[in-house]
Amino acid sequence: MNLKVIEGCFCVGKWLNHFRVMSSLVNVEKQGDFAVLELNREPVNSFTLEFLQEINAELDKVNSDKDCKGLIITSSLPKVFSAGLDLVKEVFKPADERRLASFWQEFQGMWLRLYGSRLVTMAAINGHALAGGCVLGLACDYRIMADGPRIGLVETEAGLAPPFWVFHNLAAVVGNGVAEKALLSSKRYTAQEALAVGLVDKVVPKDEVMAATKSQMEELTAFSARALELTKKVMRKDAVETLENKREEDIKEFVDCVTDEEVQRAIGIQIERITKKK
Amino acid sequence: MNLKVIEGCFCVGKWLNHFRVMSSLVNVEKQGDFAVLELNREPVNSFTLEFLQEINAELDKVNSDKDCKGLIITSSLPKVFSAGLDLVKEVFKPADERRLASFWQEFQGMWLRLYGSRLVTMAAINGHALAGGCVLGLACDYRIMADGPRIGLVETEAGLAPPFWVFHNLAAVVGNGVAEKALLSSKRYTAQEALAVGLVDKVVPKDEVMAATKSQMEELTAFSARALELTKKVMRKDAVETLENKREEDIKEFVDCVTDEEVQRAIGIQIERITKKK
Amino acid sequence: MNLKVIEGCFCVGKWLNHFRVMSSLVNVEKQGDFAVLELNREPVNSFTLEFLQEINAELDKVNSDKDCKGLIITSSLPKVFSAGLDLVKEVFKPADERRLASFWQEFQGMWLRLYGSRLVTMAAINGHALAGGCVLGLACDYRIMADGPRIGLVETEAGLAPPFWVFHNLAAVVGNGVAEKALLSSKRYTAQEALAVGLVDKVVPKDEVMAATKSQMEELTAFSARALELTKKVMRKDAVETLENKREEDIKEFVDCVTDEEVQRAIGIQIERITKKK
Repeated sequence: MNLKVIEGCFCVGKWLNHFRVMSSLVNVEKQGDFAVLELNREPVNSFTLEFLQEINAELDKVNSDKDCKGLIITSSLPKVFSAGLDLVKEVFKPADERRLASFWQEFQGMWLRLYGSRLVTMAAINGHALAGGCVLGLACDYRIMADGPRIGLVETEAGLAPPFWVFHNLAAVVGNGVAEKALLSSKRYTAQEALAVGLVDKVVPKDEVMAATKSQMEELTAFSARALELTKKVMRKDAVETLENKREEDIKEFVDCVTDEEVQRAIGIQIERITKKK
Repeated sequence: MNLKVIEGCFCVGKWLNHFRVMSSLVNVEKQGDFAVLELNREPVNSFTLEFLQEINAELDKVNSDKDCKGLIITSSLPKVFSAGLDLVKEVFKPADERRLASFWQEFQGMWLRLYGSRLVTMAAINGHALAGGCVLGLACDYRIMADGPRIGLVETEAGLAPPFWVFHNLAAVVGNGVAEKALLSSKRYTAQEALAVGLVDKVVPKDEVMAATKSQMEELTAFSARALELTKKVMRKDAVETLENKREEDIKEFVDCVTDEEVQRAIGIQIERITKKK
Repeated sequence: MNLKVIEGCFCVGKWLNHFRVMSSLVNVEKQGDFAVLELNREPVNSFTLEFLQEINAELDKVNSDKDCKGLIITSSLPKVFSAGLDLVKEVFKPADERRLASFWQEFQGMWLRLYGSRLVTMAAINGHALAGGCVLGLACDYRIMADGPRIGLVETEAGLAPPFWVFHNLAAVVGNGVAEKALLSSKRYTAQEALAVGLVDKVVPKDEVMAATKSQMEELTAFSARALELTKKVMRKDAVETLENKREEDIKEFVDCVTDEEVQRAIGIQIERITKKK
């Protein structure tokens, strides 16, 4: 349990209420002009349908808070920012195609809420950010990363391919040339390698990640909220609309891909590999 | 008054005529295969409706001169290339929405004439190039900059957002990732920082800017005019057509943005800040 | 004649058959999970209609070989990967516009087969790769280059302009900003310069090019063939469809460009220049 948050909760005198929040999968705390959203699903913040629903509900609240100008996303777990899609619970041998479709719809929804957010968004990447966990970081405007963990879209290694909007997001951040090779080789970047190609914006020691992120957030939120909102709209409108217009098609492609026999075989091998590592 | 130009005018024996040109806001001189266009509106070459109209009239002449293969844009002022839109005269508390719309139309027009030009275009950035002044530089094919002044799209700081075509132009020059952060943070690049991200192509001491620009222009205009024209068309057709098809919509967005109360408040604060600096 | 290939042919006991393949313009050899395609049209692997037809026939075979996961393209000539379009035979004073159109259609076809290939594609650039020869390299996923030769889209120098899909391919590899200046200045990159801007991915001594390429190909083809295919589709679908929808228009533009008087004059000068060098 995160002691710092509990202290903060003493200050505002809402112990019982806060205790309930702490036991949940997503913690949100307002700090001046911005909010901090902490992911808290052990052991590796991997995404299930229910976890994504909870994240999206919190993102909706923050996006609609008129006093809020920024959002920091981080992890409350010691070693992992997020390991991405929960392969075992959602993707390997899915029992129900409708659940698989809803799951992907919520994953799209998380990206749309973040990438299209009017807020300045920053990822405080204090642990590994792989596959869908890297997507979460990519959907933010800035990425401050701890020196030590790895980051990358390692879908190919798991036998999957990223959807078009994730590829475009990666290419928008690091350029198309770097993005193509990152995907084809399932590259797991060290923080320094990620910094060199622009995949993250700053690398600091792990215990300074949150302080560095907040410090930059304070600079950015000094600008007029209206100017930031208009600027974000100019930057993100096309990409957000493209996915919004193709959500059904993209869900179908995901379901078709995941239910493909060869893909299931590759996912099975990947799960075995990860399990052996432990 | 620019003595070098006056000397040149003695040579061609057109003293009286040249003196008249010198008193105008835009000076154009033909030098072999290319033209040099000098902005001359004190104190900071900021854009008003009338200044833009004069620039556009000169751009039309140069673009249609069949013997001309290149164009250099520079400033006759000692410290500033251009400070961008004239906030006080055009943007702050605009008295007439039709004038505001015409003003923006001429600003679009300047960009369309330059970005879509068949000529090789170079900006000899011999002073600060901020906001719309940076846009003028971005619309050229090459940027040679003096070491000392700053360059950047600092619209957010002024409470405004750049239009989509300026964002796309910036992203086309420095890549989408760098462009997004430049806008969100209203970054004022030093010449060396600008060089490092590709925002400018060469940095030289201030008194060598024009010589360095002309030297590169002579190399570039050695190629067949037809090949250059066809190459420019391939590179710029899509971006130019996109704005041409959305001019009215873009004008409306600018007028709506500028006449927004919160935006006006932010512009007011920015004007106060600039005035205090002086 | 390439002795190494002849040895390989002894091993599989197909001497006579292989000897015939060696005398052709295109040699294809399967090596485990991937194929190696060698261009063999002396003196500089320049593209004629017939050479392109032969290349495309071989590409079709490799693309449809279900056991094949990768493709390496290289040259059997000592100094040149490919010098691009055969200016003398196809482009200078073309006798037959229908042949010119077919020629361009096959050139488009080569690019479409490579850029849209489901395979991991690598160019082992063991000699100069200029103009259309650079296009061949750009159409691959990776480029490993020998230290020594030059690479670049030098169309402008020859009085021509690249088609939109070549420009987009270059911009997708090195970024739009670098791409524009490369075209306008007809830049011939050294291998090290090409590495610095991402035009090639690795530079090694000439006699190590093929070994380095194969080594990386083995790593890449270790991933699931289905995942690679899906990933390639995500990365390349838009660009491939854009050209497929505009092939006729693009052929017309090429024919119009090449049959333009000023363009023919510039090509004539370029041919004279190249001939004098020899």
